[in-house]
Amino acid sequence: MRISELSRVTGVPVPTVKYYLREGLLLPGTSTAPNQADYGEDHARRLHLIRVLREVGDLGIAQVRGVLEAIDREDLPLHHVMGVAHHALGPPPDPEPVSEEVARAREDVDRFLANLHWRVSLEAPARRTLADALVALRKLGRTAGPEIFKPYAAAADRIAARELSGAPAGASVAENVEWLVVGTVVFEAALAALRRLAQEHHSALRFAGRAGRRRVHRASTTDTAFA
Amino acid sequence: MRISELSRVTGVPVPTVKYYLREGLLLPGTSTAPNQADYGEDHARRLHLIRVLREVGDLGIAQVRGVLEAIDREDLPLHHVMGVAHHALGPPPDPEPVSEEVARAREDVDRFLANLHWRVSLEAPARRTLADALVALRKLGRTAGPEIFKPYAAAADRIAARELSGAPAGASVAENVEWLVVGTVVFEAALAALRRLAQEHHSALRFAGRAGRRRVHRASTTDTAFA
Repeated sequence: MRISELSRVTGVPVPTVKYYLREGLLLPGTSTAPNQADYGEDHARRLHLIRVLREVGDLGIAQVRGVLEAIDREDLPLHHVMGVAHHALGPPPDPEPVSEEVARAREDVDRFLANLHWRVSLEAPARRTLADALVALRKLGRTAGPEIFKPYAAAADRIAARELSGAPAGASVAENVEWLVVGTVVFEAALAALRRLAQEHHSALRFAGRAGRRRVHRASTTDTAFA
Repeated sequence: MRISELSRVTGVPVPTVKYYLREGLLLPGTSTAPNQADYGEDHARRLHLIRVLREVGDLGIAQVRGVLEAIDREDLPLHHVMGVAHHALGPPPDPEPVSEEVARAREDVDRFLANLHWRVSLEAPARRTLADALVALRKLGRTAGPEIFKPYAAAADRIAARELSGAPAGASVAENVEWLVVGTVVFEAALAALRRLAQEHHSALRFAGRAGRRRVHRASTTDTAFA
């Protein structure tokens, strides 16, 4: 197909396609005439993946290149390629030295994850996100340890186990990466939205019956989430 | 206490305290001399709440005012006040008319939530977030209906039920609002981070043993998450 057709089937504008060609993210098509080339299904698939990485994963060009290179290296095991894509989703590491408070929270999180026996690389960006949440709680005057996250870890474990068991059947490495990026980003937003909606629902069940401003008495439960 | 002491105990800089006084978010202290006033525990508590709404909830001054007004109105039931705070966390409504695609996704989400029998107001911002996630999936060429979110809704329901049962015992309305904002925002970030870490863990369990690039064969499961 010509570049205009490639643009049409993938939804990527022609100037953007040309940009990816110049950047080497997309292999050149087969020359059919001066200034004209033929593109095939492989180009369309690669372009779709780049679009997902850019638009859904919000990755920069350099990060997209890193993910594509990992996909193209036939010697890398799938888990490694998935890790490259997963970590590219960020957040990017902070360059400046971190405060003592942050360093302590990161150690706490590392210990927490080690106790869970989760197989997670030390460079996983989400470790830092979790430490930041701990710092935020402590800044608000709560004497929070990482075990405060335990019910959330249990929920996350169940969700991820189900998600990974749904990996696309007979898929290529590139398809797996696309599925991972979409799954991570889009369903993260969906899960956050559903949690807020469920909170409103349970707030209605719990509080809506009360007309006045009576104080809330805790239900007979010892293990509470939300600190 | 003097304003400098109020600043010290709450961690809010003096110029910011003065700004909140000018904006009427904080009631004036008791005049003790020209240009000098005395502040009490009520001021410290209110200031702490404002700080949480601003820094954790990322609310603008007008939104903070709206939440404080709801708290101060003794006739509003707690669930209503909680709803004001929850909805202020956004995202704010989009002003322009939405595309047909978005409108259709919102209807789908509304129907989905109605089928769940969740008590959620029609103005809840998270409805729009969920519809946006659906639009994103459809733009990527998936023929996704809102029932794709079902496993996430079940997980969110369990999480929220637990969270709401942990509402602080004997707390004031203001304390409940603070707890809600911190819980919604900080634990949302924590849950997202933990889900990513759990994904890496389950990817390791599933894929790390494989040296080469063999294609993935789906486990014998019919209900898959992640689309």
